[in-house]
Amino acid sequence: MRITDFHITPIAISDPPLLNAAGLHAPYALRVIVEVVSNDDIYGLGELPGGADVVADLEAIRHLVVGRDPFHLTAMAMDIEAHFGEAVSGDRNAMRTTIHSRRAARSFGAVEVACLDLIGKAIGRPVCDLLGGKVRDRVPFSAYLFYKYEGAGGELGFDTDPNATGWAAARQAAALTPEGIVAQAQAMCQAFGFKSLKLKGGVFEPEVEVNTIFALREAFGPQVPLRLDPNAVWSVDTAIAYGKKLEGALEYLEDPTRGQEGMAAVARAVDIPLATNMCTTSFDDLPGSIRLGSERVILSDHHFWGGLRASVELARICRTFGRGLSMHSNSHVGISLRAMAHLAAAVPNLTYACDTHYPWQVEEPLVGGRLQFDDGDLVVGDAPGLGIELDRVALATLHENYVRCGLTRRDDEAEMQKVQPGWKFKATRW
Amino acid sequence: MRITDFHITPIAISDPPLLNAAGLHAPYALRVIVEVVSNDDIYGLGELPGGADVVADLEAIRHLVVGRDPFHLTAMAMDIEAHFGEAVSGDRNAMRTTIHSRRAARSFGAVEVACLDLIGKAIGRPVCDLLGGKVRDRVPFSAYLFYKYEGAGGELGFDTDPNATGWAAARQAAALTPEGIVAQAQAMCQAFGFKSLKLKGGVFEPEVEVNTIFALREAFGPQVPLRLDPNAVWSVDTAIAYGKKLEGALEYLEDPTRGQEGMAAVARAVDIPLATNMCTTSFDDLPGSIRLGSERVILSDHHFWGGLRASVELARICRTFGRGLSMHSNSHVGISLRAMAHLAAAVPNLTYACDTHYPWQVEEPLVGGRLQFDDGDLVVGDAPGLGIELDRVALATLHENYVRCGLTRRDDEAEMQKVQPGWKFKATRW
Repeated sequence: MRITDFHITPIAISDPPLLNAAGLHAPYALRVIVEVVSNDDIYGLGELPGGADVVADLEAIRHLVVGRDPFHLTAMAMDIEAHFGEAVSGDRNAMRTTIHSRRAARSFGAVEVACLDLIGKAIGRPVCDLLGGKVRDRVPFSAYLFYKYEGAGGELGFDTDPNATGWAAARQAAALTPEGIVAQAQAMCQAFGFKSLKLKGGVFEPEVEVNTIFALREAFGPQVPLRLDPNAVWSVDTAIAYGKKLEGALEYLEDPTRGQEGMAAVARAVDIPLATNMCTTSFDDLPGSIRLGSERVILSDHHFWGGLRASVELARICRTFGRGLSMHSNSHVGISLRAMAHLAAAVPNLTYACDTHYPWQVEEPLVGGRLQFDDGDLVVGDAPGLGIELDRVALATLHENYVRCGLTRRDDEAEMQKVQPGWKFKATRW
Repeated sequence: MRITDFHITPIAISDPPLLNAAGLHAPYALRVIVEVVSNDDIYGLGELPGGADVVADLEAIRHLVVGRDPFHLTAMAMDIEAHFGEAVSGDRNAMRTTIHSRRAARSFGAVEVACLDLIGKAIGRPVCDLLGGKVRDRVPFSAYLFYKYEGAGGELGFDTDPNATGWAAARQAAALTPEGIVAQAQAMCQAFGFKSLKLKGGVFEPEVEVNTIFALREAFGPQVPLRLDPNAVWSVDTAIAYGKKLEGALEYLEDPTRGQEGMAAVARAVDIPLATNMCTTSFDDLPGSIRLGSERVILSDHHFWGGLRASVELARICRTFGRGLSMHSNSHVGISLRAMAHLAAAVPNLTYACDTHYPWQVEEPLVGGRLQFDDGDLVVGDAPGLGIELDRVALATLHENYVRCGLTRRDDEAEMQKVQPGWKFKATRW
């Protein structure tokens, strides 16, 4: 089997004005859909965070994908790693740099998912069976809550639809207070059945965000696990002070502060498991994390760790070194969601509900449209590959969105400045 | 696809009187051949170190193998792990013990290889393609040198064949001096083409073994990598003293002393990479190894680490934490040799020549008989599965050997006492 075609399609999907430590989501989130096609005309799908630089990176490795056997994934990963090393330093054998390693992991990760989808379809097996097989049929996800301005994103810009009801209404409603977040959580859980809640923080003063957690706890009861993610904009002292207030209230506290040393200091002082997708985000970061004890839970993300097989290897490292494993998300469509679910179904120690932005999106370039959660879970069945088929008309529309919207990279700071002139990202805000 | 049959066949293969720190090899080495058969009548093969206790362990997990989907390997591994936990403690949810974890890893490892062979045959792909694909076509092996008494083992007992020539003559010749080992090395390299040498030490006083290394270096030149394995019977002081004499002469020094603390002390004092298959032999041992810096090279062994996929995960851990990776061996036939070669072909950082006892054996329960080395390498082709077929007549003969020889477990100390009455194993001898 040989890969004969490699299609790279940037898309833009509607995204509401969600607030985070870096600023504000633009009306569109950018993704890239990759498709590998085999000489026997089977295709496999992958998806990754988008932008012009991502498209350029993928175009640059086209010759390392086309002509390859999709089973020969490690060799392809090594060639892609070498390519970016050379691109950065001019020397194929140069020492790896963090930036080029991350570009390589991101590019290969999407191609690997597409190859596994292709292989699964070719041999009539779900992708999870290529990762050691399912250990669970249902993958729980958590409700991902955001402070937000009013608006739905996409073609409406940040306008709202006055006829919306249920989650569609909550999705476009403002949520700038603890009460607003509770209402958002109730609507999201009502619509999707999620049984744990994650709040994206780092937006308001820590007091407000801690009060939001307490409001959620009050509304949902202590049996619903809660997480807070200030995206590392708290100082160590702030993280310790507010962390102590949150003891007993959180399943885990995600990236309260920046860097492994800072996280380790907070971990020593606060009796809440710390989690990260910011200070330990690659295999190169793990020795420092293990040495310092900077977090107890790693948030995996196959888009950044180099694919599904690399994520299985990360899971082994977490088991070996006594670290927990959860899963990070960005705005995404169903290809990534299915890949995340297959991975989570196959990994024994992925015991936390996974993050997903999926409820915040509305478009879907897949036959059958939006994927459905069943009581907060995705059910991983036995359909070959990822178990999805591309809707090429819908994909073309989303690619049109990409061309028309004019966005070429995610820039939450610039978007925020449209609302709050002069607003600046601060690595440590409080 | 379902596993409908699980055959467990203990065998005994001729083994010469090889000396090591634990004593003397018996005239037969014990192995167990496992075979899984699918509902569509495809079979897959695995092999593991043998003995009555190994057979009993495999019989005890029969119900966890038969009826399973061979792709669902992680779930099977978890059930086998739980089985041995329960067998040891009476409590399925008990804390794992080291002993039961090792029994689980050993049992599952062989079944996993058989399942991967079966899957490979079912989908027309070599086993290495189920591990991420080949990164090399040729897997180099090293010459495994032993001090030994005269004799060939097997049905001849420890008698010799006066008409033997070439390697067959060297295989039965005594090698009890540096000169004897040099002659053995020359004959083995002549016959198999190996380009690196490993000496099993821990047999004679350190001075003799160090002199043997220098004699090999003199005979083969500095371009041939040399390794010495005293099997941990040196004290830390002895290991440091003789390690210093060996600086510049060894590719690595394997298990000079016992335990991670001792190894770490030697590692700090001696400028030779230390390797281990004794003090860090399971995932549970890795945190201590990383924390202490007890060795720079891990000797993988899929028989003990829980199979080929677990070994790929070990390889990732070695890359992540800056440890080298090599491969350990016991006396074995071609099923294990092919499995080792497929693993080594797929693992990018397995950059050392692998150990193998294969030249010391003569029987082979495979169609076509003994596997051939090509200039010291095994060539990993594209034949489905492991690329081998069982010779059931030869297997029956080797099973007869097992029944007739009366050995039920490896006991090198008892065997040594037949030659040197009163000889006792010592954990630290020098």
